[in-house]
Amino acid sequence: MSKIIALLSDFGNRDTYVGTMKGVILGIAPEIRLVDISHNVDPQHVRQGAFMLQSVFHHFPQGTIFLVVIDPGVGSMRRPIALHGGGYTFVAPDNGVLSYVMEVLGQGEVVELLNTDYWLPEVSRTFHGRDIFAPVAAHLAAGVPLGELGEPSGQVVRLPRPQMDVNERRVTGEVMHIDHFGNITTSIGYLFWEGETSLTLTPAFDDNLPSVQVGAESATVLVHGEVIYSIRASYSEALRGDFLAVVGSSGYLEVAVNQGNAADRLDVAVGDRVDLEIGERDAAVSD
Amino acid sequence: MSKIIALLSDFGNRDTYVGTMKGVILGIAPEIRLVDISHNVDPQHVRQGAFMLQSVFHHFPQGTIFLVVIDPGVGSMRRPIALHGGGYTFVAPDNGVLSYVMEVLGQGEVVELLNTDYWLPEVSRTFHGRDIFAPVAAHLAAGVPLGELGEPSGQVVRLPRPQMDVNERRVTGEVMHIDHFGNITTSIGYLFWEGETSLTLTPAFDDNLPSVQVGAESATVLVHGEVIYSIRASYSEALRGDFLAVVGSSGYLEVAVNQGNAADRLDVAVGDRVDLEIGERDAAVSD
Amino acid sequence: MSKIIALLSDFGNRDTYVGTMKGVILGIAPEIRLVDISHNVDPQHVRQGAFMLQSVFHHFPQGTIFLVVIDPGVGSMRRPIALHGGGYTFVAPDNGVLSYVMEVLGQGEVVELLNTDYWLPEVSRTFHGRDIFAPVAAHLAAGVPLGELGEPSGQVVRLPRPQMDVNERRVTGEVMHIDHFGNITTSIGYLFWEGETSLTLTPAFDDNLPSVQVGAESATVLVHGEVIYSIRASYSEALRGDFLAVVGSSGYLEVAVNQGNAADRLDVAVGDRVDLEIGERDAAVSD
Repeated sequence: MSKIIALLSDFGNRDTYVGTMKGVILGIAPEIRLVDISHNVDPQHVRQGAFMLQSVFHHFPQGTIFLVVIDPGVGSMRRPIALHGGGYTFVAPDNGVLSYVMEVLGQGEVVELLNTDYWLPEVSRTFHGRDIFAPVAAHLAAGVPLGELGEPSGQVVRLPRPQMDVNERRVTGEVMHIDHFGNITTSIGYLFWEGETSLTLTPAFDDNLPSVQVGAESATVLVHGEVIYSIRASYSEALRGDFLAVVGSSGYLEVAVNQGNAADRLDVAVGDRVDLEIGERDAAVSD
Repeated sequence: MSKIIALLSDFGNRDTYVGTMKGVILGIAPEIRLVDISHNVDPQHVRQGAFMLQSVFHHFPQGTIFLVVIDPGVGSMRRPIALHGGGYTFVAPDNGVLSYVMEVLGQGEVVELLNTDYWLPEVSRTFHGRDIFAPVAAHLAAGVPLGELGEPSGQVVRLPRPQMDVNERRVTGEVMHIDHFGNITTSIGYLFWEGETSLTLTPAFDDNLPSVQVGAESATVLVHGEVIYSIRASYSEALRGDFLAVVGSSGYLEVAVNQGNAADRLDVAVGDRVDLEIGERDAAVSD
Repeated sequence: MSKIIALLSDFGNRDTYVGTMKGVILGIAPEIRLVDISHNVDPQHVRQGAFMLQSVFHHFPQGTIFLVVIDPGVGSMRRPIALHGGGYTFVAPDNGVLSYVMEVLGQGEVVELLNTDYWLPEVSRTFHGRDIFAPVAAHLAAGVPLGELGEPSGQVVRLPRPQMDVNERRVTGEVMHIDHFGNITTSIGYLFWEGETSLTLTPAFDDNLPSVQVGAESATVLVHGEVIYSIRASYSEALRGDFLAVVGSSGYLEVAVNQGNAADRLDVAVGDRVDLEIGERDAAVSD
């Protein structure tokens, strides 16, 4: 069974950057399996990349190596690191892009990539994806132990958690991602259905916050002036062209339009505020 | 020789949806070969996906499994199905997306995917690509027989055929697809060259329609007010920047601009009417 | 170790063209490894493709076969060719798209692809990527010797070299590529750092031109009315949002905005003039 390197970057699908990294990897680890997650993280948008990575990594088989290159600080003093945890390994710049994975996996074992033996012989100051991260990921895949790649590192850059303020009658979060369909993913999660009409909100990133029961039919979602009554189980429960709130596939509250584009119609941006009002009848907070 | 899973969806190249499906597949069938056909079917455009699938599937080796996820009805009562025919297997929602493949292959063997043993343990109501279709395709690739996946199913959703009305002097069809170059693919096909100046039109989807002989030089194509005289054998037979009609690579009549973008200049949309006037000198209809 | 076919085209990521070529290849060479470089070369932009190919090919392992389909002349008299040189093989239309690779590798061994045994049985006049180039690349990968595929060919189409005029105080070049980040790659290269403040310009395509020493801090770059003082070692040496000149990852002078989009702000186009003024203090030309 071949090792997998899964790639996430902001390099886009137009230039030769991704192909260059793949060429470098295949020169070092010819039997590796390469899987693209996405190369369309918004340019230099470390936080978006962190959120996307956290939503996808656990669907890959144990042993997968993630090569994550969203790297606005390339050529500066920001450090290259690798993280091992939960059976996975992540190779990335130390700029916070692994923050949300660490929220899930714990900090794990972190190595600062200092051993230049596993870099390309010449290192540019503009493309460490090619010169450092890709060859390191390939050497890992080829069997080099993590500890060989550098020195253990305690402190790493961590981003603020996605906002989620839980009060008795209201949960306040933010827009985290707008997808290809225009569906608006918020930071309010994880939501789990309990039967057909009731949901449990179990804070995704903060163990100290209480769980909250939410009645699907009495809940209200507010985003950018739009008020959406009730949370539906699927897109098709709204009329075609109508707004709806739904539990997205990663457990976050999502605002969508059935067979339409919610983001186009609401003009929201990543970071905008979202409120979930829990409703009088069903409000109940438990620890 | 590894099995192939070829993926067609409307998930785009920006989010983690496709990567998630690939992660799930590789967890079940680690030696599978994954090939992307496209993830840029227009959102929820089942008919476009059906047309694209029909134009590409037969170029893949026998044994290929097609994972087709254009699924506006996810979470509703629409059924998940698999179709086996012509040496290929297709896993998809039962919403008509396999219609045009069935026009070519016959209905084949259809199974409603009811056996939850081959789904992910938890099934969301917003992402069956991950929870049902990808794992089912992977289990098929790993050797699970089709019959294990559910129950035989007679009736499936079928879309209306692409329009093609054949009259003595005129064939009327519709715009089916506009490609990356702005080339306009119509439903008028299949066209085959007979020598340098004569074509045979053998209706693609309807055995009851007569074949038609078309003189390339006397034919006229009308689309959205533009009149194009004669059918050329290749793009380069028109002057740079000129409109031309040509037989596209899948045998359909296509309207293009040599080294330009026909769709930008004509403002056509999928579904618009196209006429092929056969011309007086050469008109001849045979059964 | 499986052979690699690396694909570069202008087919985009929307249609079934790339998937079709991959299906054809896998039918002939089932164990081949397919790697996408990019399918987003601007439509019919042979020179851009030539430049991109030259910047990426040498990062792939020896033995890689490059399938290059930017083919505005499909169906015309332009010839299909294969080039072998430097341990690599390139399959492409003879329209100049291999020019810049040849500048690096020398002309190598060129074969005109005349042996129809290695094409698909039916050849359209609109999609030679599928009918000629993909099957030829696959047969090469499967072990067919280059000489079997056709006849040796002396003369091939060559594009003019990227412009670079080297004078005592000024180097004049042109914009060659605008990348996904809006970074503007010029034809002025190769530039190599000598320590922290001095660069050597060793003309990329013309051995007859002299090498030039450039002082990073006294150099000035002019493009589209913007004057940029000094050449930086990395993007992060400019303030966020500021223009800077930098040595790009392939050794060419590049104009960028730190964490911004230079092309959006300058409205430049491929082909626009760029000047590098070397500066009084450091100017020195050597042979």
